[in-house]
Amino acid sequence: MTVTVISAMVRPLIEDRLPDWVEPRWFTNREEAVELAPEAEIGWFDFDKKEPMIEAVKAASNLKWLNSIYAGLDFLPLDLLAERGVTVTNGAGINAITIAEYVVMGMLVHAKGYADVVRARDRREWLTDSPGKKELAGSKALLIGYGAIGKLIEPRLEAFDVEVTLVRRSGGDKALGPDEWRGRLGEFDWIILAVPATDETEGMIGADELSAMKSDAVLVNIARGSVVDQAALTKALEDKSIGGAFLDVVTPEPLPEEDPLWDLKNAEISMHLSGRAQTKMFLRSAERFLDNLDRYRAGERVEPQLDPKRGY
Amino acid sequence: MTVTVISAMVRPLIEDRLPDWVEPRWFTNREEAVELAPEAEIGWFDFDKKEPMIEAVKAASNLKWLNSIYAGLDFLPLDLLAERGVTVTNGAGINAITIAEYVVMGMLVHAKGYADVVRARDRREWLTDSPGKKELAGSKALLIGYGAIGKLIEPRLEAFDVEVTLVRRSGGDKALGPDEWRGRLGEFDWIILAVPATDETEGMIGADELSAMKSDAVLVNIARGSVVDQAALTKALEDKSIGGAFLDVVTPEPLPEEDPLWDLKNAEISMHLSGRAQTKMFLRSAERFLDNLDRYRAGERVEPQLDPKRGY
Repeated sequence: MTVTVISAMVRPLIEDRLPDWVEPRWFTNREEAVELAPEAEIGWFDFDKKEPMIEAVKAASNLKWLNSIYAGLDFLPLDLLAERGVTVTNGAGINAITIAEYVVMGMLVHAKGYADVVRARDRREWLTDSPGKKELAGSKALLIGYGAIGKLIEPRLEAFDVEVTLVRRSGGDKALGPDEWRGRLGEFDWIILAVPATDETEGMIGADELSAMKSDAVLVNIARGSVVDQAALTKALEDKSIGGAFLDVVTPEPLPEEDPLWDLKNAEISMHLSGRAQTKMFLRSAERFLDNLDRYRAGERVEPQLDPKRGY
Repeated sequence: MTVTVISAMVRPLIEDRLPDWVEPRWFTNREEAVELAPEAEIGWFDFDKKEPMIEAVKAASNLKWLNSIYAGLDFLPLDLLAERGVTVTNGAGINAITIAEYVVMGMLVHAKGYADVVRARDRREWLTDSPGKKELAGSKALLIGYGAIGKLIEPRLEAFDVEVTLVRRSGGDKALGPDEWRGRLGEFDWIILAVPATDETEGMIGADELSAMKSDAVLVNIARGSVVDQAALTKALEDKSIGGAFLDVVTPEPLPEEDPLWDLKNAEISMHLSGRAQTKMFLRSAERFLDNLDRYRAGERVEPQLDPKRGY
C-alpha cells in the first residue's frame, strides 16, 4: 500500500475511484497536513494560502511525487524538492481555457471601454458614444510565452483577425527569438505576457520596454506581477505613454489600498481571478490525478511535470 | 451631371475622388438637406437623429438612389421609397466587425461576472473569487439571424469551442428552421439575436420563449429592442428564471431612468454602443459609396441593397 496524503476537498471527486494499492490519508487543515506529511510517498498538499503548502512540503521527507492543482509553484521550496528527487506534477493547463478566455475578454473590454459603460449603467446614464473605439480586427499582438495558455490564446485571437506574433526560443515563421522581440516592440497594439515566473522572466518588462511600445499599446499580464517593473508601468500609465494595461496579476497581491495603480483608469485590475472564473478546475485536476496514479503504478511518466530546477 | 446631395460630414473622405459626372451638393444641417433634396438623383441623407432623415427622404421626390451608413433603416418611410422605385443601399456590414466583437465581449463579461470586478476595483476591494464562473468552451449558442453580423459571430465563437447552432429559413446541417428553434430553446446556454427588425421578428422572444430557456441561459440582443417583449424579459430577469441578458438594444432608447431594467444586475445594458465602438465606419462607408458610384454609372447593381418592401 502506498500512503497518499490528500486534501479532503478532493475526496468526493476521487475516493470511489482510487486504485486499491493507494492508501489515502485525508487532511482537512494545516495541522493534519503537516502531521501526515512525513508518511506520504504521494502528496497533494493544496491550500488556498501559500504558507501551509510550504510547511507541509517541508515536512514531507519521504515524498516521491508531489501533485498540485496550481500551475505556478515558484513559492514552494523547489531547491529542497530537487534535492530530495521529488517528481512534481502541477496544474499547468488545468485552468488554461478560462485564462485564455479572460485575456480576450480583457482586450475587448479595453478596446470598447466597457468599464466606463458599466459605470455609466450604474449611474443610469445613457451614453451616446462608445468610450472605447478600437477593433481587435486588423490589430497586432505580441504573445510572449507559448505554454498551455499561450497556445489557447493564439487561435482565439486569430479568429478575431488579430495578427499574432509569438516569442519563442527557436524563433521561426511567425515567431521572434528571445533576442529579437525587444527591438520590434513598437510594432504591436497588444503585448501579452503569458510566461512562467522564473529568474529569466522577472522584470522582463521595464522602463526601456515600456518606452519602446506604441503610445496606444496595451500591456496584458496574466503571468506574474514580478514579470513587470510595476513602478515603471505605473509611470507609463500616468504619463499615458502607453494606451493601457489589463493586469490580472500585480505586486503585491492583494494590491494595497493606497497603491497608485488603483487611481489609473487606464489600468484594468482583475485581482488574479482569471483562473478562478470557472468551476471545472477541481474536476479536471481530479481526472488528471487518477490518470497519473495509473501511470505512476506502471512506472510511466506522470504529466505534466514541473522541473524544480527550472521552476516551471 | 448627376446631382448628388451628401452630408458635408463625408466631404473630406470622398470629395477628391468623386467621378466627374457627379455634381455634389453638400449640406451641413437639416434645413439645407431638405432644401437640396428635391434636386437629388442620388442622396446620402444621414443624420444622427431619425427625424431629419425622414424629412429629407420625403422631400427627395426625384431620388433614384438613397445611400446610408446605417444598417437598420426601418424608421424611414419605406413604403414611399418602394412606391417611388428608389434603390436603397444601407450600411449592412459596415460595422458588423465591431458588433460581432461586442457580442463575444458581452458573453465573456457575463461569463466571468466582469461588471462586478469593475465595481470592486472602483471600491479598491481585492476579490478572492470570480463573480462569474462560466467558461465559453463547451457551451452551446443559438444564433438567430445570419446576416453580415451573424456570419462574423459564428467563427469567433467557434474559436472559443462554443457549439453554434444557426436559425435559417432553409434549416440544414448545423441549422434549425424557423419552425424548429422554439422547440429546442431549452438546449442552449446563449440565445443571440442578430435578426433585422421586421414585422416577422417583432416580439419574437416573449414569455413563452423565455420560459422555455434554461435557468442559466443568457439572452444577447444586438438586433432591436422590439424583437424582445421587454416586459416579459424584465419579469424573467427579476424571477431569475433565466441567467441574464446582455442588451445592446432596448425599448425605448434611451432607456428611461425609472425603467426597472436598470435595477437588475443580471442585465448588462450597453446603450446601443456596439456599432459605435470603432472609428472606421465612415471610412468603410465612403469607400463603398465610391465603388457604388462606378457601378451606378455603368448600370450595374449597387450593393448592399435594402429591399424597401421587406424592410431589410
